[in-house]
Amino acid sequence: MKDSYETPALLSKEDVTTQILIAKKKAGMKWEEIAEAIGMSPIWTHSACMGMNAMPADKATALAKVLDLTPEAADVLTEYPTKIWEQAVPTDPCIYRLYEIVGVYGPTIKAIMQEEFGDGIMSAIDFDMTLTRVESPKGDRVKLEMSGKFLGYNNW
Amino acid sequence: MKDSYETPALLSKEDVTTQILIAKKKAGMKWEEIAEAIGMSPIWTHSACMGMNAMPADKATALAKVLDLTPEAADVLTEYPTKIWEQAVPTDPCIYRLYEIVGVYGPTIKAIMQEEFGDGIMSAIDFDMTLTRVESPKGDRVKLEMSGKFLGYNNW
Amino acid sequence: MKDSYETPALLSKEDVTTQILIAKKKAGMKWEEIAEAIGMSPIWTHSACMGMNAMPADKATALAKVLDLTPEAADVLTEYPTKIWEQAVPTDPCIYRLYEIVGVYGPTIKAIMQEEFGDGIMSAIDFDMTLTRVESPKGDRVKLEMSGKFLGYNNW
Amino acid sequence: MKDSYETPALLSKEDVTTQILIAKKKAGMKWEEIAEAIGMSPIWTHSACMGMNAMPADKATALAKVLDLTPEAADVLTEYPTKIWEQAVPTDPCIYRLYEIVGVYGPTIKAIMQEEFGDGIMSAIDFDMTLTRVESPKGDRVKLEMSGKFLGYNNW
Amino acid sequence: MKDSYETPALLSKEDVTTQILIAKKKAGMKWEEIAEAIGMSPIWTHSACMGMNAMPADKATALAKVLDLTPEAADVLTEYPTKIWEQAVPTDPCIYRLYEIVGVYGPTIKAIMQEEFGDGIMSAIDFDMTLTRVESPKGDRVKLEMSGKFLGYNNW
Amino acid sequence: MKDSYETPALLSKEDVTTQILIAKKKAGMKWEEIAEAIGMSPIWTHSACMGMNAMPADKATALAKVLDLTPEAADVLTEYPTKIWEQAVPTDPCIYRLYEIVGVYGPTIKAIMQEEFGDGIMSAIDFDMTLTRVESPKGDRVKLEMSGKFLGYNNW
Amino acid sequence: MKDSYETPALLSKEDVTTQILIAKKKAGMKWEEIAEAIGMSPIWTHSACMGMNAMPADKATALAKVLDLTPEAADVLTEYPTKIWEQAVPTDPCIYRLYEIVGVYGPTIKAIMQEEFGDGIMSAIDFDMTLTRVESPKGDRVKLEMSGKFLGYNNW
Amino acid sequence: MKDSYETPALLSKEDVTTQILIAKKKAGMKWEEIAEAIGMSPIWTHSACMGMNAMPADKATALAKVLDLTPEAADVLTEYPTKIWEQAVPTDPCIYRLYEIVGVYGPTIKAIMQEEFGDGIMSAIDFDMTLTRVESPKGDRVKLEMSGKFLGYNNW
Amino acid sequence: MKDSYETPALLSKEDVTTQILIAKKKAGMKWEEIAEAIGMSPIWTHSACMGMNAMPADKATALAKVLDLTPEAADVLTEYPTKIWEQAVPTDPCIYRLYEIVGVYGPTIKAIMQEEFGDGIMSAIDFDMTLTRVESPKGDRVKLEMSGKFLGYNNW
Amino acid sequence: MKDSYETPALLSKEDVTTQILIAKKKAGMKWEEIAEAIGMSPIWTHSACMGMNAMPADKATALAKVLDLTPEAADVLTEYPTKIWEQAVPTDPCIYRLYEIVGVYGPTIKAIMQEEFGDGIMSAIDFDMTLTRVESPKGDRVKLEMSGKFLGYNNW
Repeated sequence: MKDSYETPALLSKEDVTTQILIAKKKAGMKWEEIAEAIGMSPIWTHSACMGMNAMPADKATALAKVLDLTPEAADVLTEYPTKIWEQAVPTDPCIYRLYEIVGVYGPTIKAIMQEEFGDGIMSAIDFDMTLTRVESPKGDRVKLEMSGKFLGYNNW
Repeated sequence: MKDSYETPALLSKEDVTTQILIAKKKAGMKWEEIAEAIGMSPIWTHSACMGMNAMPADKATALAKVLDLTPEAADVLTEYPTKIWEQAVPTDPCIYRLYEIVGVYGPTIKAIMQEEFGDGIMSAIDFDMTLTRVESPKGDRVKLEMSGKFLGYNNW
Repeated sequence: MKDSYETPALLSKEDVTTQILIAKKKAGMKWEEIAEAIGMSPIWTHSACMGMNAMPADKATALAKVLDLTPEAADVLTEYPTKIWEQAVPTDPCIYRLYEIVGVYGPTIKAIMQEEFGDGIMSAIDFDMTLTRVESPKGDRVKLEMSGKFLGYNNW
Repeated sequence: MKDSYETPALLSKEDVTTQILIAKKKAGMKWEEIAEAIGMSPIWTHSACMGMNAMPADKATALAKVLDLTPEAADVLTEYPTKIWEQAVPTDPCIYRLYEIVGVYGPTIKAIMQEEFGDGIMSAIDFDMTLTRVESPKGDRVKLEMSGKFLGYNNW
Repeated sequence: MKDSYETPALLSKEDVTTQILIAKKKAGMKWEEIAEAIGMSPIWTHSACMGMNAMPADKATALAKVLDLTPEAADVLTEYPTKIWEQAVPTDPCIYRLYEIVGVYGPTIKAIMQEEFGDGIMSAIDFDMTLTRVESPKGDRVKLEMSGKFLGYNNW
Repeated sequence: MKDSYETPALLSKEDVTTQILIAKKKAGMKWEEIAEAIGMSPIWTHSACMGMNAMPADKATALAKVLDLTPEAADVLTEYPTKIWEQAVPTDPCIYRLYEIVGVYGPTIKAIMQEEFGDGIMSAIDFDMTLTRVESPKGDRVKLEMSGKFLGYNNW
Repeated sequence: MKDSYETPALLSKEDVTTQILIAKKKAGMKWEEIAEAIGMSPIWTHSACMGMNAMPADKATALAKVLDLTPEAADVLTEYPTKIWEQAVPTDPCIYRLYEIVGVYGPTIKAIMQEEFGDGIMSAIDFDMTLTRVESPKGDRVKLEMSGKFLGYNNW
Repeated sequence: MKDSYETPALLSKEDVTTQILIAKKKAGMKWEEIAEAIGMSPIWTHSACMGMNAMPADKATALAKVLDLTPEAADVLTEYPTKIWEQAVPTDPCIYRLYEIVGVYGPTIKAIMQEEFGDGIMSAIDFDMTLTRVESPKGDRVKLEMSGKFLGYNNW
Repeated sequence: MKDSYETPALLSKEDVTTQILIAKKKAGMKWEEIAEAIGMSPIWTHSACMGMNAMPADKATALAKVLDLTPEAADVLTEYPTKIWEQAVPTDPCIYRLYEIVGVYGPTIKAIMQEEFGDGIMSAIDFDMTLTRVESPKGDRVKLEMSGKFLGYNNW
Repeated sequence: MKDSYETPALLSKEDVTTQILIAKKKAGMKWEEIAEAIGMSPIWTHSACMGMNAMPADKATALAKVLDLTPEAADVLTEYPTKIWEQAVPTDPCIYRLYEIVGVYGPTIKAIMQEEFGDGIMSAIDFDMTLTRVESPKGDRVKLEMSGKFLGYNNW
């Protein structure tokens, strides 16, 4: 009972992600290079290209220029996303390990943070993150740094 | 159909966590001070006290001394835990934000990490983490740093 | 395999909630009167008494005085809670209607809010709420007013 | 085993939502302007355009005129919807915060409301809501006001 | 980490249900007789005795007299309940058949009701129900009659 | 990995439901009128048109005549359905209220029924139902009457 | 917030099951012998002893005599049970295989049965079952025979 | 991000099921007749046609001849299936009753079987089943007979 | 509504597991030594001690002698278990990796096994397993060997 | 709201799996032969062909040559996969038995492994597996051998 009468379809964030992945392959660029080209970090850039964050208009235009996207695609990149992610336990081993870390250390992070700051949370909105490679003789390490504003509870 | 005949019960990790919380309150110490007293980091110390990691014998003995725990408690701290955590979406706002970050940025971390290292994962076993306060005029920030060994996939 | 060796148990937030409910019944006071007596709003007061928010020390002391609670109970009221709520669809008809409202109007609130403020959220931390009765000839109405700080997304 | 023999398809509420979103973009109108043009509130208007409420015939005709929709679309807007929403915990951070509020404060709202009105519920059917921006030097706030008829339980 | 310090426990609705079931067995009365004795219907009476509805004070007193309950029990019967029911598919064959009927005929009831009344719902709050036995040569039948106020949607 | 080689597709119950909805709109008939035209009740008729019950051949032929359906559609209406309904808690407010009634009053219906009939169930197979409007000065009421054969348990 | 004031507890079906299991062990009887002693089948007898079926008074008395149960236990055996079983996929390998059979062959049984009988079900209420051992040179086989009344759908 | 470049699609088991259902309707044969024509039982035949069991080559060829299927279809019938069935509680009343029987009597079957055979299971692989109609003056009955090899646990 | 009248409780498999764990600690034995002492493999021995397999009477007696268990405990070890395991995704990192292996390689094992043996399964009943340490300069490896009888499907 | 504007689609891992299955059928090769042709093991080869592992470039080229795949397909085989598997309990009997083994013996493997190695896990990343047929007079057996690097927990 769906899809009928000729309605001009909308270009979705998912469509734009597909355009970007094709353009990236053709250009032979890494996310790090794309991010540098538009003056943002690799994690934020990838996330916005996946449709999980909105781009300011100038960044969207810059990206469209770098990857030769259509103006409509640039426009879609500035739209506010509805963030949907896998609600079940993720199965990909790489993503699962992150989930395991949050499961095992979540209550610990809460305890240590609240001892330092008082009752509240680390914002996931006013937030940024970087990933770097740290060389080590026993095998290189992944370093993930997260930074979020502390928000204290309001009494009223 | 449970609990019968006089069986001498075992001291569980949960019991020891209770002992520690009471002793900590009585001693008026913060996790940071306890961690420093046994020469480990606050996050690892809290996690082991919660029963989510095993302590080497010398650290367990040191902790027992600092908090005046029984020898049996120190012994239990060295046992290998079965790590059980909340499998549903956590409801506590502080822990939920961490889960949201993994949900929103998980695929991005995977993409950026694999572009840098090749196919594989960041180990959650050969792993450590720190939490620090970063002062800022717009409101202080929480800084979480994670470091895990990169493990590449094996072809055979 | 739990509960053994004589460990002096901790007074939990749940225990304090029980103390408060008994004292409230004995005192014959309404939540509104208790709230007024400690100079806070009824919703915040009830929520903190249920163990879903922490009380500042002075408010906890005031409450202990009003309801004749033990000093240990006042102390527990100042502890930072781990907020746990029913994760399944709530079955109580009164609470379910609130859930239904969020289900039906959630995407609408998001759309209208973001059109007004840009991409972001209404904080549930820096937040307050009031409930009032509005008389009406067709049957009185419940008026719920929520107010939360707008938090815009961070680009980096 | 679906979709076969030439059956003239029905125009669904989802199709009409798509028509409206395209027309709105083309017209460059905000929801607030559209709502004003048909003499209804922004929240109700958006909700009905999303297919979560039925429009009276005159409002549907007015909307069709404002956005230049087809008569069939206006007709579909008057149909009674089957309201379906995401049954799992919502993942979008903006909508999740509303869910968190209901989770944390639901039992409190119930307690305060029933102390004031007796046993019963706030109707989610005979119901309305507004969203307004409240300026504040510490950052603007979102104000959400809900109003629903109180319905007391029936004894028989 | 629960239950400690001597706190005088509250009498719960569940405790009162147990008192009633014991008293009913001792008195050798059927629900129909108990209901008649307090001047209410059998379904409402049973439901209130199970803790799923609150009794007005006079009915609670009457019930306490009929079944020789303590005054505290009568008091608890007047408290507003938090209605909790089995959220998963019920397994008892008798209750499951009711669930199956709602699953199979729910959309049909909605369609027929809305054709008759317009968009809205049958209230489950302003509601009553009776169960009667209908003799039949092919085997007696159960007759369930439900009556609820129609509530139409509000446009605003 | 589906749908290939030219296989003539089957006409499904879902396709026939679509045919009927279009024909009903075109004919401007209500379910009550359609039901009367084929000499059956509105609830059973709607349910069979939705594909949740099978029609005897004469009723299917009658319906095809009234609504000008193809002979293949009439044939499909006589097929025995596989009844599939929403297994999660339904979100539509109108259907949810029915589910809430079964949740709140299910154990009560079981208790009252078994006190009257002995151990057993009300059949959901040898079953019928009617919906009528009852006028009332305080607002009209929906009356739902269900009737099912009582089936007692078998001992062997 | 449970268990308080001295309320004389009820003897539950679960308690009686425990009594029976102890008495059976002491008596050194097999289910087959117990069933024979009360003149019923082994499957029905075990099921009623597990609290999943109600016993007629004479059978309950007979069982109490055979196993030397208290009169209260015999009384409880005649109560109508609320049948609760594991709602998730069962993990015991023996029970899982039965579930797998229903999963794999359920639609087939439906198709073959309805081709033979018309639309309807095999009753699980007017139902019985036997289990026998069939010797075979390749390894003995389990033979499960089920018999249930066919119930055809009602049109109205 | 699926379906692209011209790849010749595979004929799936689902496609073959569709072919068979169409051919069966055209041939006007019952499952019993088809089964007889290929010299197998009706339940096994239906199950293999539904894609839940693999056919030996000669049976697949015989079926193709009886129903005039393509050689490719016969080939697909011999492939080993991946058995997927509805993992949630089944909603079709006919299949649900089978599930209810396994839920209610599963632990009983286990107890009676293990008393007879020792610890182990009834195989669902080395397994067969028949369904027959048993006439009865009180209404005909469905007789389901299952037979599976007993497999005892291995100690090592 | 549980636990009442003085009923002599049964000794459960869980109780025996507790007895064994205490005795093992006191004896200072490893599972490998216990297994050797009773002439069985370490994996089977541990599994039976955890209540997941039944012991033959002579092995149970031998174990009771080695660990100085009561005769009742030995008796309980010979009872046939109901195997219950964590049905959700396991959270312990060590057990999760096994689950991940089955998730990632399950369909592959099926394909390779069926290519070799025909359609069927590897029995989990007629089954054994060993775990050994394999030294390696890059870090020692865990070697898990499983062996189960192949069971082919039955056509009938 | 998906699929629009002409975007050249990407070739997915799923598409390549389809290409391989068709080519394998045409070539009449077994997985064992394909694996040998590219110099890898059958399990790893099948897993990579199913899109659950990435192939090194030379192996992908070799496979493309053996099965006459397009260069684009070879390219896709080298991409790092997102591993997704059925998160619910698997229903296929062959795969279910593996899951049952992990459920029943998981805690045992953990206990035996940690007694031998200390606290830690068997890596599922630095991992390999073989499947072999072991002839036996009582019926051939499946032998599954897994080998993974032991990873000990990190204290910090």
